[in-house]
Amino acid sequence: MNLLFLGTSAGQPSKTRNVSSLALKMLNERNEVWLFDCGEGTQRQILATSIRPRKVAKVFITHLHGDHVFGLPGFLASRNFQASEELGQTDLDMYGPLGLKEFVMNALKLTKTRLAFHINFHELSEGGRIFEDETFEVYAEKLNHTIFCLGYRVVEKDKVGELEAEKLKADGLPFGPLFGKLKRGENVEYEGKTFLAEDYIGAVKKGKVLTILGDTRKTDAAVRLAIASDVLVHEATYKAGEESLAKRHGHSTSRQAAEVAKEAGVKRLLMNHVSARYLGADISELAQGARNIFENSFVTKDFYEEEIS
Amino acid sequence: MNLLFLGTSAGQPSKTRNVSSLALKMLNERNEVWLFDCGEGTQRQILATSIRPRKVAKVFITHLHGDHVFGLPGFLASRNFQASEELGQTDLDMYGPLGLKEFVMNALKLTKTRLAFHINFHELSEGGRIFEDETFEVYAEKLNHTIFCLGYRVVEKDKVGELEAEKLKADGLPFGPLFGKLKRGENVEYEGKTFLAEDYIGAVKKGKVLTILGDTRKTDAAVRLAIASDVLVHEATYKAGEESLAKRHGHSTSRQAAEVAKEAGVKRLLMNHVSARYLGADISELAQGARNIFENSFVTKDFYEEEIS
Repeated sequence: MNLLFLGTSAGQPSKTRNVSSLALKMLNERNEVWLFDCGEGTQRQILATSIRPRKVAKVFITHLHGDHVFGLPGFLASRNFQASEELGQTDLDMYGPLGLKEFVMNALKLTKTRLAFHINFHELSEGGRIFEDETFEVYAEKLNHTIFCLGYRVVEKDKVGELEAEKLKADGLPFGPLFGKLKRGENVEYEGKTFLAEDYIGAVKKGKVLTILGDTRKTDAAVRLAIASDVLVHEATYKAGEESLAKRHGHSTSRQAAEVAKEAGVKRLLMNHVSARYLGADISELAQGARNIFENSFVTKDFYEEEIS
Repeated sequence: MNLLFLGTSAGQPSKTRNVSSLALKMLNERNEVWLFDCGEGTQRQILATSIRPRKVAKVFITHLHGDHVFGLPGFLASRNFQASEELGQTDLDMYGPLGLKEFVMNALKLTKTRLAFHINFHELSEGGRIFEDETFEVYAEKLNHTIFCLGYRVVEKDKVGELEAEKLKADGLPFGPLFGKLKRGENVEYEGKTFLAEDYIGAVKKGKVLTILGDTRKTDAAVRLAIASDVLVHEATYKAGEESLAKRHGHSTSRQAAEVAKEAGVKRLLMNHVSARYLGADISELAQGARNIFENSFVTKDFYEEEIS
């Protein structure tokens, strides 16, 4: 999986940072892309990447502030247009706060934008497990912002070990139904020889856990959601030292993001949603404010991509 | 006045062209900027120019397709934010089709975006004179698109000639109330000498006329609206030869734009709303298709600025 930051500014775009959006590229895992927030101009940011809009199968919205959703109608219209030119339409699941459907459908209706694909809206008024299939689960948790705002925890399920077929054949078991038996964990007798399942099944491959937050003050809810994640994406609207300003506006400083990362025991902290007031040396300072608390911290910028492996 | 093209693509943004928006900078004339359409990402395009959002006093929307309006909520939110940081708020007049107010207010309401300035909505269901003050008039006319769509004609009123004060003084009339009499066109007697108003009032300065169209098939309404304009901004979604495709989608080719320019007797044709399918040599061909009909034609690109003088 790869996390690709499409917009890392707070509130308004700047010359170098667009407003919030983040793509989780799961091409190997699911042949899908998941989008987290979709600020104005996200569709144009996507043009500068290898992402094809029709591959976006799920959109998760953290909260209904404009800098996180004003790009949705345009993204949907272009996804519709591009998909119909290519390989047909695929439906879309959209998760987010109550009101999301009204915002999207009203914009599409008034602009006579007809989509050839269906949007399944999942409006959330509280946290919990919001998605599960064979390989992934997603949890949401309410954060602490000026309006209802969610964080999302994406859990890749552990993969059971692969059957080591070459080793089995080398040890004298010919390919056939007994392979399936071993794979299910049962031991097998063949021509007087015992094959123990545990000898031929590889190690479980631990799934990755990513926690992606919306705008928030420092909160225990973020710690709970992010616990032991491989990656935590946490906003850092302000630099360390601006805690009272951050609190007043419903945001966090880089120091607070790092404290959450540390308390949750995550492996890596990626910070986004950086105030447009910060440039150059200020950004280094913002980063340092986090690293003083949690070493493996990084301030993202637009188009920064991190491989999760 | 200057016309500054902020987005010249049709339907969707491309890497080099954003969706529709155009600024009429009237800083000398009115200390204002007027915006025509506001596609998604317009506020970020503005960041690359010298335009200050709070100077935007009027917004004219041609029609309610997404590529012409999805940038409005974000533009308004940022205008609000920037203005409050600077010199206070100034109200905004917004002209466009019925439904414009609902689109804007719904987006602002659902995202809890509170503006400190007032928007005066002028929703139009037909053409006519929609604005007049001492120095400017604006007319609208219904075009021929797939939905209700307007073109706008901006008329700068003629300026009466200046009183040539230095010449008067040199000829022996001392500065005083008699100057005002001459300025009102009355002749003046002073110490036995007659001063004829016509000798001391400069020539009338003809005001400029700009016609800015929304999306449209070739239509007589465009010719009527644009008659004798200094500049006509006409869409050219397709290149010459693609007339049937253009008609089917409610658009024009470059040849048709040029025909309208010629029939209306305008001085200069600026083409925008160019399909993202055209790049490089195709654009030259699109331009040539217009020049074959009307020599003074030009295909604009993003950030192209033309001085109207």
